[in-house]
Amino acid sequence: MSVSKELIQKLITVVGESYVFTDIETRNNYGHDETEDFCFPPSVVVKPGCTEEVAAVVKLANDFYTAVVPIGGQTGLSGGALSVLEGIGLSTERLNKIIEIDEKNLQVITEPGVITQVLREKVAEKDLFYPVDPSSMGSCFIGGNIAENSGGARAVKYGLTKDYVLNLEVVLPTGEIIWTGANTLKNSTGYNLTQLIIGSEGTLGIVTKAVLKLLPKVSFNILMLVPFYKADQACEAVSAIFRAGVVPSALEFMERDAIDWSLKYIEGIAIDVQPDHQAHLLIEVDGNYPEILMLEAEKIMNVLEKFQIDEILFADTEDQKSALWKMRRGVAEAVKANSIYKEEDTVVPRYELPKLLTGIKSIGARYGFQSVCYGHAGDGNLHVNIIKGNLTDKQWNEEVPKGIREIFELTLSLKGTLSGEHGIGWVQKNYMDIAFSKVHLELMEQIKYIFDPNNIMNPGKILPDKF
Amino acid sequence: MSVSKELIQKLITVVGESYVFTDIETRNNYGHDETEDFCFPPSVVVKPGCTEEVAAVVKLANDFYTAVVPIGGQTGLSGGALSVLEGIGLSTERLNKIIEIDEKNLQVITEPGVITQVLREKVAEKDLFYPVDPSSMGSCFIGGNIAENSGGARAVKYGLTKDYVLNLEVVLPTGEIIWTGANTLKNSTGYNLTQLIIGSEGTLGIVTKAVLKLLPKVSFNILMLVPFYKADQACEAVSAIFRAGVVPSALEFMERDAIDWSLKYIEGIAIDVQPDHQAHLLIEVDGNYPEILMLEAEKIMNVLEKFQIDEILFADTEDQKSALWKMRRGVAEAVKANSIYKEEDTVVPRYELPKLLTGIKSIGARYGFQSVCYGHAGDGNLHVNIIKGNLTDKQWNEEVPKGIREIFELTLSLKGTLSGEHGIGWVQKNYMDIAFSKVHLELMEQIKYIFDPNNIMNPGKILPDKF
Repeated sequence: MSVSKELIQKLITVVGESYVFTDIETRNNYGHDETEDFCFPPSVVVKPGCTEEVAAVVKLANDFYTAVVPIGGQTGLSGGALSVLEGIGLSTERLNKIIEIDEKNLQVITEPGVITQVLREKVAEKDLFYPVDPSSMGSCFIGGNIAENSGGARAVKYGLTKDYVLNLEVVLPTGEIIWTGANTLKNSTGYNLTQLIIGSEGTLGIVTKAVLKLLPKVSFNILMLVPFYKADQACEAVSAIFRAGVVPSALEFMERDAIDWSLKYIEGIAIDVQPDHQAHLLIEVDGNYPEILMLEAEKIMNVLEKFQIDEILFADTEDQKSALWKMRRGVAEAVKANSIYKEEDTVVPRYELPKLLTGIKSIGARYGFQSVCYGHAGDGNLHVNIIKGNLTDKQWNEEVPKGIREIFELTLSLKGTLSGEHGIGWVQKNYMDIAFSKVHLELMEQIKYIFDPNNIMNPGKILPDKF
Repeated sequence: MSVSKELIQKLITVVGESYVFTDIETRNNYGHDETEDFCFPPSVVVKPGCTEEVAAVVKLANDFYTAVVPIGGQTGLSGGALSVLEGIGLSTERLNKIIEIDEKNLQVITEPGVITQVLREKVAEKDLFYPVDPSSMGSCFIGGNIAENSGGARAVKYGLTKDYVLNLEVVLPTGEIIWTGANTLKNSTGYNLTQLIIGSEGTLGIVTKAVLKLLPKVSFNILMLVPFYKADQACEAVSAIFRAGVVPSALEFMERDAIDWSLKYIEGIAIDVQPDHQAHLLIEVDGNYPEILMLEAEKIMNVLEKFQIDEILFADTEDQKSALWKMRRGVAEAVKANSIYKEEDTVVPRYELPKLLTGIKSIGARYGFQSVCYGHAGDGNLHVNIIKGNLTDKQWNEEVPKGIREIFELTLSLKGTLSGEHGIGWVQKNYMDIAFSKVHLELMEQIKYIFDPNNIMNPGKILPDKF
């Protein structure tokens, strides 16, 4: 779907010549996110500077029956920002203002192009807390978080992006602008379009403003790294901790291989991992009263002593805490930088984690692929990095997808689903039939149609090619 | 829309003769909820006993182009369960099993006809906590809570029904059965139909099973009643408490008239209210560490001393706590039992409460109606009971709705909306144009259409008659 000269001229009229790009370098720069090594450049990149410009661009796209792909921080892991049908790549990077931090109502009104970490820091300056912390928070955008319903390490206690979005300004695929809800904590007024837009991966419209809920700041935390001699016991401990009445602010799982990749490739991590440690849990509790955190940590230790663990490492300093988080957050980066891989975002009820992990390894053994598993165990959310290693292209492209299908069938049999926080995007869409019946998929397709009758808004995403 | 003999015969075939009722007494019994004094009896009442029977009834309704209205605990306040077009009243009362309390995953799988309080008590026996507590929890159903996205006093800390629903089994208006999501805490897999069904007031389908998230139990609380000499200062204190870094587990506002109605009509409340107390806040903090609760209570008292308050009453015993909650929860009952009234469910960002309260009183003064205001101030959710008193029927039916319209316009101007937790149902639908543009309402109408092309599922609710 190339873009006509006439359309480009009209785009220039809308956003100005400085913000319309047709050179191949820019197009390539906006042709990828963090999904595998894919590059699908848009035919033209536009960078509107306000809601009205976004609306005008979308209206043009609709008039010209041309695809428009919203592009945020390009950190997505399911290919949601890839211009798979070319067309217009609409970067939200100039929509990067925090419009108001409303201290009286504990809310922030923001544009979508604000980097998540920047938003977290700006509200922290006012003693407020935005808890959502995807691993990519240093570069991902709030708009992308909304599009994918992003989580992160603290989701286990504080919830996901969807739990903080009160109201959205959205440019619909027709170019109309609506606010989906109200700036209130409660809302039972009509169908919940706010939650319908969240996680819709830019296929139903482009978010141009968001009103987010904030919490009072949380001042203290305790972070511990727990080495397990058996990986399945690490998974079992996860459910036991909650059952003891503790809700940790993070509960992360790393199997041995995950830590090894991180230690090997990420600089500045000096952590003593013994050869017989099969897996680790990284556990954090947080709150405003240090003495209570000690009590919670003790409760956790009482649970852990029932399992075969080695000595627990408590992070004593901020530097140690940073190192542990760097190790955890570095896994994906280490794998990515050093191998061709596919990443799955499996999620199950947390007690089913041991079955999921065992099942994945067994499926991998049958199909001959190695996998590196880690993730937000407290949520039952296990990231599975499948390494190409010595597989042939034929095995990689034809056999491995069958193994992935089996992994997803396993998650469904455990009452889980395909994606916990990365979305379906482009790379998982043809597994959707595992999670949903034909009737269900048709409903989704019809919802897409009523928002976007000309199928111009991020086409080719979420819904399977045919079902 | 009366129901043919043929359809009744087929309904009997599906659910059995004992569960199909056409007598006027039963029809009247199922013709009302708690909305004003309305009674709209269905033509026939059916009580299916399982999902498959619900699906078969709905399929018949669809085949016969006959309205079907899901009826739960009949405690709704927006007329969602009224059979305004007659047809089939489908009671969910036989779907009253708690299927499984899953202690390992902190979840409960339940049918929709379980009473909310029963569910809370059953999970509490396992040291688990379902926090949603609408005032009607002693008789409302979980299914109704899902339909209206019900809140309650603890929503301020723990959230609404929508924050606890992980997955729903839904009978669609065509009679098809789907599960909307997965039994997981996180889910970024396709459009969020779970959240679309929640709050859709039975217009998109009938929930036949729900998977709900549970929390570890919370053991202690402190409850205090704070008398204010000025009502607007009580409202102002609400925002100030959060700004001090405390998140109370309940923060309820009652203006003077509300307490007076409750004290006058509800038995067993012995609370000393002075003539110059204009309003009260009922404030609760909860947690597992009593010493921390004392610290939080002190923080709250430090905030409160900046306002003109009389002596704070701390509830020392469980009996005293019950009396205070009875007083608060009794307001609606007291008003309802002793007056013709209309109830509005206004909601604004919490800092805007003083403006909302002042505005409502000023609008009331212009239209000549008295209002009793109370509610979940921590959420900015103010219930407004408009008393008929000495107004003529003409004033009541023609003038008061204009005043209500002005109240809603005020909530919108304060970035709030029409309903925080009661829903739109039948009585508020013709105010929807205040909250939503034509484009927005058309999207909702189209969503309704794709789920329910024959408009049989709870027709005449939510969407305005014409827009």
